[in-house]
Amino acid sequence: MDSQDFRTSLFAAGLLVDGGVDGLYHRSFAFEGIVRGVERYVTRAGRVADDHRFFFSPVMARSALVSAGYVRSFPDLIGVLSSFTGGDRELPALLEDLESGGDWTTHLSALDVALCSAACHNLYPRFSHHAVSRDGQVFEVQGVCFRHEPSPDPARMQSFRMHEFVYLGSPEGAFAHREEWITRGGELLRALGLDIAVVVANDPFFGRVGRMLANGQLEKELKFELVAPISSDTPGAIASANYHEDHMGLEFDISLGDGEVMHSACFGFGLDRIALALIRRHGTDLGSWPSDVTDRLGMDAGGFGRS
Amino acid sequence: MDSQDFRTSLFAAGLLVDGGVDGLYHRSFAFEGIVRGVERYVTRAGRVADDHRFFFSPVMARSALVSAGYVRSFPDLIGVLSSFTGGDRELPALLEDLESGGDWTTHLSALDVALCSAACHNLYPRFSHHAVSRDGQVFEVQGVCFRHEPSPDPARMQSFRMHEFVYLGSPEGAFAHREEWITRGGELLRALGLDIAVVVANDPFFGRVGRMLANGQLEKELKFELVAPISSDTPGAIASANYHEDHMGLEFDISLGDGEVMHSACFGFGLDRIALALIRRHGTDLGSWPSDVTDRLGMDAGGFGRS
Repeated sequence: MDSQDFRTSLFAAGLLVDGGVDGLYHRSFAFEGIVRGVERYVTRAGRVADDHRFFFSPVMARSALVSAGYVRSFPDLIGVLSSFTGGDRELPALLEDLESGGDWTTHLSALDVALCSAACHNLYPRFSHHAVSRDGQVFEVQGVCFRHEPSPDPARMQSFRMHEFVYLGSPEGAFAHREEWITRGGELLRALGLDIAVVVANDPFFGRVGRMLANGQLEKELKFELVAPISSDTPGAIASANYHEDHMGLEFDISLGDGEVMHSACFGFGLDRIALALIRRHGTDLGSWPSDVTDRLGMDAGGFGRS
Repeated sequence: MDSQDFRTSLFAAGLLVDGGVDGLYHRSFAFEGIVRGVERYVTRAGRVADDHRFFFSPVMARSALVSAGYVRSFPDLIGVLSSFTGGDRELPALLEDLESGGDWTTHLSALDVALCSAACHNLYPRFSHHAVSRDGQVFEVQGVCFRHEPSPDPARMQSFRMHEFVYLGSPEGAFAHREEWITRGGELLRALGLDIAVVVANDPFFGRVGRMLANGQLEKELKFELVAPISSDTPGAIASANYHEDHMGLEFDISLGDGEVMHSACFGFGLDRIALALIRRHGTDLGSWPSDVTDRLGMDAGGFGRS
């Protein structure tokens, strides 16, 4: 089954509906029920304190996108928001282009907000120009992320949710957090019946310079992905583990109080991709899924899996 | 207590965290637990068939924004996405402005995607150029909506969730749907302890022409809002009931099969505003909320209200 067949089977089962643009989908309540189940499942495993857990809105400060170094490294993936900021006097020109089929977007201006790039990018600005404890702290955050990479492959959505466990603190703590979560995340996902492999990976840095950055990332083994078959037999990433070294500490000016720069690491579960991998593994008929899987996901309680 | 005091109390209780731009907030798991509770509560009351229920992504086709007439009427509220679509050759100019503090957004191009304006706007394109049954059908949809109206008032978020029950069919059916939901919605919200009034209302149409449209909407009593105290004693809308007449039918070319244009109506629960109104009513200490309210919201099961 290739990604086109998988997409067709998702539509036929009513789990997803075509959103009219490549990479945009409407989720059925059943699909959402799987996502919510995975969310509860990893939340329980994480056991993070309540005052360290946040849901971020899909919209974030544009300045955070810049500070995270995301615009520089992934300019082709960002989504900056624009709107009409003129008055009654400027309106007719917009309406004229709108009616005539002209490019009405030329009448819009960029706003100070953008779509969230990675969930954890919303976290660092809170500590900007401050010190955090060397002992380290862990945050649990969920974000709706945007990547401008339209594709007919359902595993490559333009809008998707990332549920992350993020560590801020010492170099040793950050490295240990990543290693611990590679193990724990793998166990959690395997317990759902998924065939998981852990591979060294790189981010899709832009252009010629980007290829060098990607090579550096690979050589230093900063990023690992947990991969499983999603929309084809070729495994794709459903979770990723990143050691940022002092990148975020430098970009956001966060120290350890003694002059040393903060290190950070994150482990992110790709909720929509995990839902897709589970559908591929256990079938589009959610009622026939193994009961140990639906029990682990709590798909009868509080979700929308079986209404 | 005015909206500034309310905002301060939300931050102090850790229910919301400042997102760094007016109208942007990070939600605590506790706040999210209230939203999820309200979602379950209204979903149970709606009893819509599974194949008529959808969660929409925050990102939608830009064309749907135009077709819904939203760009024409609310150009100042929209959010169109832009990204860098150049190559290695165009990149240095972007990076130069990025480094020097220039306006790097001038190097971006508008995409074919935008943020969702109102949840139901994602629904109509599916029936474009088709006929629907005169008998009518009801859909339950949730969308993350965007409105470019930055404000320090927590009741006016730039990104918020709307949970709607939408009717497509005959004029009589659409009118009856709206009336039925004004009653049912009011009962549901009052049962949560909220002090609800139903008032005739208008959308914030843009500019001089917009004021005439707003007056027409008021005169014809097409829109009602269910209001309650949110961030101040002055009641604000936490739900709205709209009879679109044949507006969406005409804009999206949807008929009733016999040449007549489809009529539509929607009832939308503003999930984030309802959560805020509940916090204002019952306090920032969720543990002290009346048990009949937390029972109705199922805040102990499946949500994040009390972990």
